[in-house]
Amino acid sequence: MDVTLINPFLDATIKVIETMAMTKVSVGKPAVKQGKGTWGTVTGIIGIASKGLSGNLVLSFEEPCILAIVNNMIGEKHQTINEEIVDAVGELTNMISGGAKAALSEQGLLCDMATPMTVVGRDIEIKQFSSAPVISIPFETEAGKFVVEVCLKRDAKKA
Amino acid sequence: MDVTLINPFLDATIKVIETMAMTKVSVGKPAVKQGKGTWGTVTGIIGIASKGLSGNLVLSFEEPCILAIVNNMIGEKHQTINEEIVDAVGELTNMISGGAKAALSEQGLLCDMATPMTVVGRDIEIKQFSSAPVISIPFETEAGKFVVEVCLKRDAKKA
Repeated sequence: MDVTLINPFLDATIKVIETMAMTKVSVGKPAVKQGKGTWGTVTGIIGIASKGLSGNLVLSFEEPCILAIVNNMIGEKHQTINEEIVDAVGELTNMISGGAKAALSEQGLLCDMATPMTVVGRDIEIKQFSSAPVISIPFETEAGKFVVEVCLKRDAKKA
Repeated sequence: MDVTLINPFLDATIKVIETMAMTKVSVGKPAVKQGKGTWGTVTGIIGIASKGLSGNLVLSFEEPCILAIVNNMIGEKHQTINEEIVDAVGELTNMISGGAKAALSEQGLLCDMATPMTVVGRDIEIKQFSSAPVISIPFETEAGKFVVEVCLKRDAKKA
């Protein structure tokens, strides 16, 4: 596991969730993802690309966890997954990838981000095609869990 | 609809399917996607990113259509969606995005591609977060239909 590629996503996740949702986050141990289903009920995906790096960032939230995060962000009391919650996952995916992009660029690893997509539903078969492993990082909040999955490879074709 | 952004994907799709799968393809009329479900049974997704362009390419195949395409590609007789079929959709997504990237670059529109992902299942809620519309292009083969969805915006932040 290449921690120089993983840590920027881990740090950006903590910063965005703690700042935007005023939600304390603790991080578990990163591991290679087993299985090929969506981990949580709402999943955000964004592609990462440049001449030197390519892959995807995936965030996947348990329902109570994302409800608490988004309700904290926007000051509402949604009790089920609806369009507003899904849109917020797209926005969080954007913000976390933006933070990671900035941190990667400080290491001289330049990349650009695609636009976010969301998938709703648990254990939907979703698979990444890369020579790099999918690293799954578990996070815990008071309201529940989420995972961040990073699959990123350095490409030979440098800029 | 910005045809200079759409045509490279349309042309690359025809070229890849006709060359790799020796399958004649006819193209329907592109339209803005309605709804937010996966169109077919197996869907390939790849992020597109650069300082000037960002978005996603989505290919989604009816089951009989992708079985015929992949069986033609690899000379086998798979009768149901299995790992080999799903992997081939990842590979087709890669090849079509690569062809479109080359054609875009001939127009001076440089971009890089993320790595492909696949989603298995029909009408799974999947949504793109972009100010650009999702343009859906229907294709037809003897064995059935597929669609190519392109959501791509030009970014102000030029290289």
